[in-house]
Amino acid sequence: MSWLAGQGSGEENDNLGVDWVLQYDFGDLDQAQAILEFRTLVADLHEAGLRVQVRHGHGSSLLVCIRVPRDHLGQMIQKSRIKDWLFGITHSLPTGDENTTADPETPAEQIRSVYHAVTWQKKLGGAGITPNHGKWKNVTASFPLHDQDACSELLRQWNRKTVLTTQDLDTIRALFGEKVAFYYAFINCYSLFLVVPAVLGIFGWLYLGPYSIIYGGALCIWCVVFVEFWKIRESDLGLRWGVKGVDRLKMDRAQYEWEKEVTDPISGQVVHVFPGWKQFLRQLLLIPFASIASVALGGLICATFASEVFISEVYKGPFKGYLEFLPTVLFSLSLPAINSFLTGIATRLTDYENYRTQDLYDLAQTQKTFVMNFITSFLPTILTAYVYVPFGKSIIPLLDILRWTGLNSDTAKIYREFEVDTSRFQQEVIYLSMTAQVLSFGEEIVLPYVKHFLWQKWRNYRDRKAGLSRKRSLSKASDLLLIDPLEEASFLKRVRSEADADEYKVEDDILEMCVQFGYLALFGVAWPLVPLGFLLNNWLELRGDFFKLTLECQRPPPIRTDSIGPCLLGLDLIAWMGTLSTAAIVHLYRGPMSEVRLSYLLLTIFVAEQAYLALRFITSTALQKIFSDALRREEARRYAVRKGFLEASTSPAEKSTSPGGRVRQRVRFHERVNVYPSSDSNHSPDGSPSPTIEEPHDDVLRGSDREAEFWAGPSSDTAEAGVKLIRALTSKAGDDAKWTKEA
Amino acid sequence: MSWLAGQGSGEENDNLGVDWVLQYDFGDLDQAQAILEFRTLVADLHEAGLRVQVRHGHGSSLLVCIRVPRDHLGQMIQKSRIKDWLFGITHSLPTGDENTTADPETPAEQIRSVYHAVTWQKKLGGAGITPNHGKWKNVTASFPLHDQDACSELLRQWNRKTVLTTQDLDTIRALFGEKVAFYYAFINCYSLFLVVPAVLGIFGWLYLGPYSIIYGGALCIWCVVFVEFWKIRESDLGLRWGVKGVDRLKMDRAQYEWEKEVTDPISGQVVHVFPGWKQFLRQLLLIPFASIASVALGGLICATFASEVFISEVYKGPFKGYLEFLPTVLFSLSLPAINSFLTGIATRLTDYENYRTQDLYDLAQTQKTFVMNFITSFLPTILTAYVYVPFGKSIIPLLDILRWTGLNSDTAKIYREFEVDTSRFQQEVIYLSMTAQVLSFGEEIVLPYVKHFLWQKWRNYRDRKAGLSRKRSLSKASDLLLIDPLEEASFLKRVRSEADADEYKVEDDILEMCVQFGYLALFGVAWPLVPLGFLLNNWLELRGDFFKLTLECQRPPPIRTDSIGPCLLGLDLIAWMGTLSTAAIVHLYRGPMSEVRLSYLLLTIFVAEQAYLALRFITSTALQKIFSDALRREEARRYAVRKGFLEASTSPAEKSTSPGGRVRQRVRFHERVNVYPSSDSNHSPDGSPSPTIEEPHDDVLRGSDREAEFWAGPSSDTAEAGVKLIRALTSKAGDDAKWTKEA
Repeated sequence: MSWLAGQGSGEENDNLGVDWVLQYDFGDLDQAQAILEFRTLVADLHEAGLRVQVRHGHGSSLLVCIRVPRDHLGQMIQKSRIKDWLFGITHSLPTGDENTTADPETPAEQIRSVYHAVTWQKKLGGAGITPNHGKWKNVTASFPLHDQDACSELLRQWNRKTVLTTQDLDTIRALFGEKVAFYYAFINCYSLFLVVPAVLGIFGWLYLGPYSIIYGGALCIWCVVFVEFWKIRESDLGLRWGVKGVDRLKMDRAQYEWEKEVTDPISGQVVHVFPGWKQFLRQLLLIPFASIASVALGGLICATFASEVFISEVYKGPFKGYLEFLPTVLFSLSLPAINSFLTGIATRLTDYENYRTQDLYDLAQTQKTFVMNFITSFLPTILTAYVYVPFGKSIIPLLDILRWTGLNSDTAKIYREFEVDTSRFQQEVIYLSMTAQVLSFGEEIVLPYVKHFLWQKWRNYRDRKAGLSRKRSLSKASDLLLIDPLEEASFLKRVRSEADADEYKVEDDILEMCVQFGYLALFGVAWPLVPLGFLLNNWLELRGDFFKLTLECQRPPPIRTDSIGPCLLGLDLIAWMGTLSTAAIVHLYRGPMSEVRLSYLLLTIFVAEQAYLALRFITSTALQKIFSDALRREEARRYAVRKGFLEASTSPAEKSTSPGGRVRQRVRFHERVNVYPSSDSNHSPDGSPSPTIEEPHDDVLRGSDREAEFWAGPSSDTAEAGVKLIRALTSKAGDDAKWTKEA
Repeated sequence: MSWLAGQGSGEENDNLGVDWVLQYDFGDLDQAQAILEFRTLVADLHEAGLRVQVRHGHGSSLLVCIRVPRDHLGQMIQKSRIKDWLFGITHSLPTGDENTTADPETPAEQIRSVYHAVTWQKKLGGAGITPNHGKWKNVTASFPLHDQDACSELLRQWNRKTVLTTQDLDTIRALFGEKVAFYYAFINCYSLFLVVPAVLGIFGWLYLGPYSIIYGGALCIWCVVFVEFWKIRESDLGLRWGVKGVDRLKMDRAQYEWEKEVTDPISGQVVHVFPGWKQFLRQLLLIPFASIASVALGGLICATFASEVFISEVYKGPFKGYLEFLPTVLFSLSLPAINSFLTGIATRLTDYENYRTQDLYDLAQTQKTFVMNFITSFLPTILTAYVYVPFGKSIIPLLDILRWTGLNSDTAKIYREFEVDTSRFQQEVIYLSMTAQVLSFGEEIVLPYVKHFLWQKWRNYRDRKAGLSRKRSLSKASDLLLIDPLEEASFLKRVRSEADADEYKVEDDILEMCVQFGYLALFGVAWPLVPLGFLLNNWLELRGDFFKLTLECQRPPPIRTDSIGPCLLGLDLIAWMGTLSTAAIVHLYRGPMSEVRLSYLLLTIFVAEQAYLALRFITSTALQKIFSDALRREEARRYAVRKGFLEASTSPAEKSTSPGGRVRQRVRFHERVNVYPSSDSNHSPDGSPSPTIEEPHDDVLRGSDREAEFWAGPSSDTAEAGVKLIRALTSKAGDDAKWTKEA
């Protein structure tokens, strides 16, 4: 990523032209094996036409810095664009033929091609490096480097504004790709929509109180409108970013097993077919899986809930204050194990379902995670709302274990006098919308930061000790190898830190927002200030997530997608359940619980469901009618392309001037550099001409001397340099071990 | 339609190269006005480049026979194809430029272009003839002529087979266009699907009896699967016939009022915009309309129902046997008036909603018809099932008008002893599935045929009388004008008969099938043999409808569409209501009615609804996965087109050989002639070369001498010939009147 190089401002943050970094960890291997494997790695990368430099990482690992020569990269981008056009993702054919070198429009486009060059199978022209999998299970990290300047600039900009504009989303997309950008578009759209129920909520809190029919109705309508609006917004953005239907052209996964290879008679493409009905049959296994997960998690939650109620309401013995928390603590402790067990089954199921592309695979996996998350997030509150409060009076006495065991004989009286605390449900909702949000923010963003910080401290401490040991070591030559050159030191420090960082999983963030939306839709009517709490939380969440993305996680590969994925279906489901739930809660909690009759309750829910179905139909029709602009524009664009082509083909003389509407605005390199066009002047105050785009064929490096220096070592020597490093590091590790023993 | 000419077999059925016929009725005008208007009509047609011949019709009307010169027609077809391609309906650009003359692939394509030439506004290159509207309200009929040979061949073929194949549907499409073909595809698909519940029904009738849970469940599943399958089948056929998204390129209606004219910045098209939100607001008027219609029709139906029940169950006075039918007779008599009143409101609403294209207008109108039909068809049975039988015991005594008026005092006893006849519901369902179907078939097909036949007889009788009067008339010259030349006599007889025939409304036929599906879904569980009855009826219905289309109605203009229209939504609605209704009926009627409790009934319906929603989701996902072939093929086709274009554009030398995938199979004229390719040899047993396609520019007529003779009169004289006919006819009418007075 040399696209900030030579700007002066970012000496510290210069990526030295490194496009991609692999971390090769040979801690588990013996030296000979490690050297052999490393040589293969470098050979594969060379074979794919990539330039490689190697440096040592933390512990016994190497950092393989990869650079795609600029002409090769340009061709890859061009090929990718032509493919987009062939599959109908974009409508204007890029200028030039397959061998033209194109300039990336955005950093994300560039990095995506690098990603393909590194990860695609060899027959597709990639190096076939699949980290943590199969042959390359010792490649523990594979990531592009962050663009520090752009990120901090963006964070600074965002702190000055409340609402993200579409331009901000475009910038996110330019830096991190569409998948991440869709998340920010979603949280932004959702937060803006939250303003309506937040205002209504304040009004409702002041004048209506909880369980208000008016507020509940408004909330349900709001949910439906939001979900339908988001669907349109999503398809709108998909068209804006030119990713509509992009999952069509994704490559086969390495693990995909097809049944037959079919050459399509019409298009001439070779397609690997796995019958749809077979896959569907396999997908039906989701039903037993969801059932088992529901039973397992549900049972656990019920047990926890029951014992908690038992202890807090019935138990009068010693240590009551501490014992009250015991079930929740036990539950929290066992949840990870159960979750990982279920996730294991889910992964095996998804593997078995045999998806062609990584996208479909991720989608199926996220679906299953969604089911599990749904249960763990909502079931406790659902139990409180629909079981504990309404039926508590008749259920709690059943928990009378003490009397069964004969230990305590005066409990009968307690049960007779037992009164369910009807405000417990509302308290839980208040907790969910305030405390839980703050806690989860801390857990998600602050805690990892602290952990990462402490881990770094400890690392530095260990490295200092290793330095001490090194002084006593004999092998001076290998020691010199392990000392970073001064001009690379800060860069390498950053690379090592990023290699250590977590992968960013945008699905988790989307899921978190869906769960929040679920709380609001399902239980929001119990306390009108819930949306206000969420709104405030989301203001912070948006910035926190961006902080996490840029400073705590590796830069994700800029994957393209045209939707927020299976969560969209989840939103529909939540809006539907929300309507039923709101109706039921209002009916149950509005008056005295004892006067509620089952038939009227059912009638209320039934009517609410019909109202929901009608409302959704009307909303979706209305919104589609009103916001049909983007689709119309898209159609107009297609029309223009065809018209242009028609004109060009019917008057061949003019062909060269307007080749079938294939006019593509060339983006100047310098414009791509800056995240915001307005800050352009800040970066080149001297008015010097910006670096030219056209690169000589032999990939002479632009930018600073430091960058040129970094890549100066002949690429062919990389393997040897790496081998030397492995030797040095393994001997150092030996020394360390020796030193530790001596100490 | 000269495409069967010269085949020997069809001398009788030869259309003499007439593409289109207008009937100009000047009965209400005085002679001078009629002559003036007729001259304008002929001038407009000439201006649009059409050839015209005029003959006299029945009564005081003229038949204007129109022929589009073949080079003009070819250019129109070519332009239409290019437009299809520009709007992305088809993916391969037709060969040649805008001035190439293309040959029609199907008779429907040819007639569609003729239709455009006659009806499009002048600025679009048509003659702007809008029958029964505005300036041309005296043009009482506008239709293409039937292709008698093809129709009778088709009817003969169909009688030999039980199931229509996709080829048969293709033939329908080739003759009558996609809109009609979709109806036949629908009824065929529906009837095939009916086999499953018919078999299940026989099984259920033998072993399970009515109101069986198993049969009801199977029926609901079947309904959902059918609706979801049809959606896929429909989109499949849309792709096969190249009409997917065809409503995009429809022309503005003459009545459309736009707010602003926008030149699209991307495509350069001029678009007439009427804001979507405004239209949506206007559409919301549908809600009060539906409410008023419901109340009006519902009230009437309730009143009828109540008085019928009152007379049959309570009344003991004289003429009981006749009086019993009185309410139904009164209802049937007043229904047309109410319906026409409501249709009037509906039409004004639809006019007000201001749709851009005729398609959208028809769609909106059909929606409203659907609502009205829904009420009149289902409400009586719904009343029986859910009001009369369950609550009859408590409601019927309220009908005690006699006691209120004090006329009869011993009715109280009757009421106390009154028992509701619970089998009444089942009897009604049996009536609906057997008798009502036969009656409606008779009403729809047999009755019009008899009416038409008798009308013809009367016409002939009148014409004979007119002939007698003519003998006594003085004006020999004008009389000669009114005698058909021998070689045209049978042709003109046919044209006159077709001009008199009704317009074919395919929407009504589709609606009829939807209502049938509704009976099955809503009430089918009451009598397991319902689907069998429907299956048998549909076998006949399919053939009867085709008989009606070809022999009783005018040939409809071959309009393109990609769906069966708003009925699709209706099917969804019916499947949903069907599930609820089946659940409720099974719950209510299975055991003794008195033991039913409201809460359990609601619970049953609620559970059924959730099951329906889940089932629909699963079915639609599964079917889309399994039947994704057509979509995949469509994508492959697009890909191939783009690939071809790419190859052509990157290697300009080869451009002429493969111009961007624009290879369009030329269909030989002779192949288009025959409805079935296999019957090709029957038609030209002499092995003579089929007529060539390439026509000289001056439109020399092919086919028989008779055809040439028909068109021999110089086109410029047509106006004069018509004027003479008008004079002759008006004087004849005067004579007639005189003669009638004398007699």
